[in-house]
Amino acid sequence: MTAGELVVRVRYPEVDRMNVAHHMHFLTWMEMGRTEWMRSAGVPYGVLEDRDGLRFPVTEVQVSYHRAARYDEELNVRTALSHADRIRVRFEYEVSRHDENGLLATGHSVHACVRRDGRPTRMPKALLARLTAC
Amino acid sequence: MTAGELVVRVRYPEVDRMNVAHHMHFLTWMEMGRTEWMRSAGVPYGVLEDRDGLRFPVTEVQVSYHRAARYDEELNVRTALSHADRIRVRFEYEVSRHDENGLLATGHSVHACVRRDGRPTRMPKALLARLTAC
Amino acid sequence: MTAGELVVRVRYPEVDRMNVAHHMHFLTWMEMGRTEWMRSAGVPYGVLEDRDGLRFPVTEVQVSYHRAARYDEELNVRTALSHADRIRVRFEYEVSRHDENGLLATGHSVHACVRRDGRPTRMPKALLARLTAC
Amino acid sequence: MTAGELVVRVRYPEVDRMNVAHHMHFLTWMEMGRTEWMRSAGVPYGVLEDRDGLRFPVTEVQVSYHRAARYDEELNVRTALSHADRIRVRFEYEVSRHDENGLLATGHSVHACVRRDGRPTRMPKALLARLTAC
Repeated sequence: MTAGELVVRVRYPEVDRMNVAHHMHFLTWMEMGRTEWMRSAGVPYGVLEDRDGLRFPVTEVQVSYHRAARYDEELNVRTALSHADRIRVRFEYEVSRHDENGLLATGHSVHACVRRDGRPTRMPKALLARLTAC
Repeated sequence: MTAGELVVRVRYPEVDRMNVAHHMHFLTWMEMGRTEWMRSAGVPYGVLEDRDGLRFPVTEVQVSYHRAARYDEELNVRTALSHADRIRVRFEYEVSRHDENGLLATGHSVHACVRRDGRPTRMPKALLARLTAC
Repeated sequence: MTAGELVVRVRYPEVDRMNVAHHMHFLTWMEMGRTEWMRSAGVPYGVLEDRDGLRFPVTEVQVSYHRAARYDEELNVRTALSHADRIRVRFEYEVSRHDENGLLATGHSVHACVRRDGRPTRMPKALLARLTAC
Repeated sequence: MTAGELVVRVRYPEVDRMNVAHHMHFLTWMEMGRTEWMRSAGVPYGVLEDRDGLRFPVTEVQVSYHRAARYDEELNVRTALSHADRIRVRFEYEVSRHDENGLLATGHSVHACVRRDGRPTRMPKALLARLTAC
């Protein structure tokens, strides 16, 4: 299980009146981590959608928040594929400060494989092989 | 020139660390005002896109911010069509507190008329007549 | 366990290139449902923060997505408090189309009680009584 | 007039059902460009707010949209200070594809200088000197 790394800086409008990053933005950062993971795996998500007509909609997401992220901080998002078969993939995420070890948040997401029309489909074997080779 | 009215409440993640609504969200509220204006005019924007294959992408937007909007406040968005011909429409907006007269922000947006493929097209005369009848 | 109801319309920028509401926005709708639940319970969240110096930061959030929400649809968010003690509260959410019975998404959130400086604190008994009286 | 450069990648939830970046997100990218410009000028905006108790709220923003930005594209944001005196600063922005010359959007923003309590104040001369030295 190889992990991908993404560095993302907390944007001004992502910080709320508690002076911390609002919890919803972790979903975006996790999605960005997943996107970079797939790019590294040789399966850029945009190409999957546009050329192959496949989509990985989120069917479940969960996040545990341990410590707050602050304005203008650089965060590290570590992404790993923890399960994949022809109908479902699951990713795990760890978000930390770029220059520290402690975790700010951990989470996971589960995805179905559907066609352009939204109907579930079995993932092509070649694609599954690519994802699980990482 | 008839004006449409929309009431919208400031959401928690829309408020920044200055404890005021971040300026970007006024663009969403103006868009929502425009959407309700078009619904009132008998031209729901979703129908225009999905059935008629037409789109009104924003080609210019401008906002002047006079006073801040705060968390959980109800805002009034007044929308008016100020110009329309077959290649361009322009809307004006006024945002105020729901229970007050003073303006928080004023702005405008200009829109082209394009087809599904993004190419400019002349707006159908019947559609233009509808918009300008309001 | 009484449930609060909120109606929210899917906004244009909340819809992604799959032509469905992006999954992150369900977190905002759940937060709005929670806000209205607390207002009904006589504890407006903004007052809690500003007058009482208390905050309920999210420590965990989970969402299961069953069906997609589409542009301009009106959604129903049902919110219920499922657990509360002096250090933790938990809410459950159900999101459905306003005019249908089927569920689009279900989820929950867990919240700590902290002071303005971010330190955990025991919730005042009067506040806990208010929340659990609903 | 020196210009700062920022590279930003279009995120999935920033793309709308027209399959282009929603126009509101250009305001965030412009703000990010301004943030990096100020960092280069030796005046990190977060430090200005937190240490000096000063804020530069947006009093006007304008954007002209020429061409669409697409999912996963890398964009270039060029930012330049075009005016500064002790009560007002103005920035100009150009957004283009990272690997192309043509402009996607141009815009400007005007900012007041206020104290933590929101009252206007004259910008310290040393700060003004820093901004205009660039």
